[in-house]
Amino acid sequence: MFRTILSVTSSREGDIINISPHVEKAVAESRVKTGLVHLFVQHSTAALTTIEYETGVLADLRRALSVLAPDDADYAHNSRWGDGNGRSHVRAALVGPSITVPVENGRLMCGTWQQIVLLELDVNAGRKRTIICTVNGS
Amino acid sequence: MFRTILSVTSSREGDIINISPHVEKAVAESRVKTGLVHLFVQHSTAALTTIEYETGVLADLRRALSVLAPDDADYAHNSRWGDGNGRSHVRAALVGPSITVPVENGRLMCGTWQQIVLLELDVNAGRKRTIICTVNGS
Amino acid sequence: MFRTILSVTSSREGDIINISPHVEKAVAESRVKTGLVHLFVQHSTAALTTIEYETGVLADLRRALSVLAPDDADYAHNSRWGDGNGRSHVRAALVGPSITVPVENGRLMCGTWQQIVLLELDVNAGRKRTIICTVNGS
Repeated sequence: MFRTILSVTSSREGDIINISPHVEKAVAESRVKTGLVHLFVQHSTAALTTIEYETGVLADLRRALSVLAPDDADYAHNSRWGDGNGRSHVRAALVGPSITVPVENGRLMCGTWQQIVLLELDVNAGRKRTIICTVNGS
Repeated sequence: MFRTILSVTSSREGDIINISPHVEKAVAESRVKTGLVHLFVQHSTAALTTIEYETGVLADLRRALSVLAPDDADYAHNSRWGDGNGRSHVRAALVGPSITVPVENGRLMCGTWQQIVLLELDVNAGRKRTIICTVNGS
Repeated sequence: MFRTILSVTSSREGDIINISPHVEKAVAESRVKTGLVHLFVQHSTAALTTIEYETGVLADLRRALSVLAPDDADYAHNSRWGDGNGRSHVRAALVGPSITVPVENGRLMCGTWQQIVLLELDVNAGRKRTIICTVNGS
């Protein structure tokens, strides 16, 4: 088992960061040829998924997240704590913090149009985000 | 590999139960210091995710689930079977039944404001829910 | 570790295919009795989850996906590329491409009313979909 920490820094709410190159690098370091790589974002206002990393699709995903948890709704979290990121927590919980991807020949087995992304969902962005990366295999 | 069953009992639809203490206990029993813990809820009307376990956020998440699958919509499942939990199935399928969390020094590597939760989505609550917990590592 | 490729062919957008029998067969081939099976769909317009495989619920899930990303919205992806599957990408990213299920006595530990499904979300269906299946255990 190989473990490393991936760090990415977002600049604003709605940033979608392609972390596939970081993960590929970690897999190379692990020297695992056949196995699984697990990723977990250690925050409650960010999330992980896969998507085609194309500007149009990314904009469409942002809009869908706004349907799920509108920007201008009244959030109980905001009323209680006044930090304004109620929508961020809700979106992150629905997308989820973890993903596992198979590795073969030391490479991620993603589709050609399928990248692993971190969603920065916090309204208070410009944040360093920590992703725990664990590689298992041989 | 260590495996145990976690059981939690919900009292009503919309219950969100913090299972992090149960998972921490299972990890301690497993004696795994560095590895991964996998959780799977063995039901189609409950789900697992992470969230900040704070009353306001939990209320906000419930509302978002109602946007996804409104309480008062007409569900084909309900028409066919008359059991009234069509919305429960839909919400559970969208959030998902499984999550994997890294372990280091025998502790869950969650963020400070990030707890693992079971969402009780069934309209017929007061249920015992079974979560299969599997710990791998050394 | 045992790895195999599962292939399923969809006929149209919105197809929900019960892959539990395929996964059970792969687990049997692996000879793993106690462990975990990981599934990853290698496409950005398909997704994996669990659901009760019942016609009514499946129709209800399709409707919920249409709330999330309506059929007739304007998608930036469609404007840029003209391939009409903006909604497919958004829905797939929100449901997610991967799931892990525990195995005991060589069987999936799903609930009685809980099947593993592939969601065909692409508007251009009739597609062969590749799912990477990895079984770990003893």
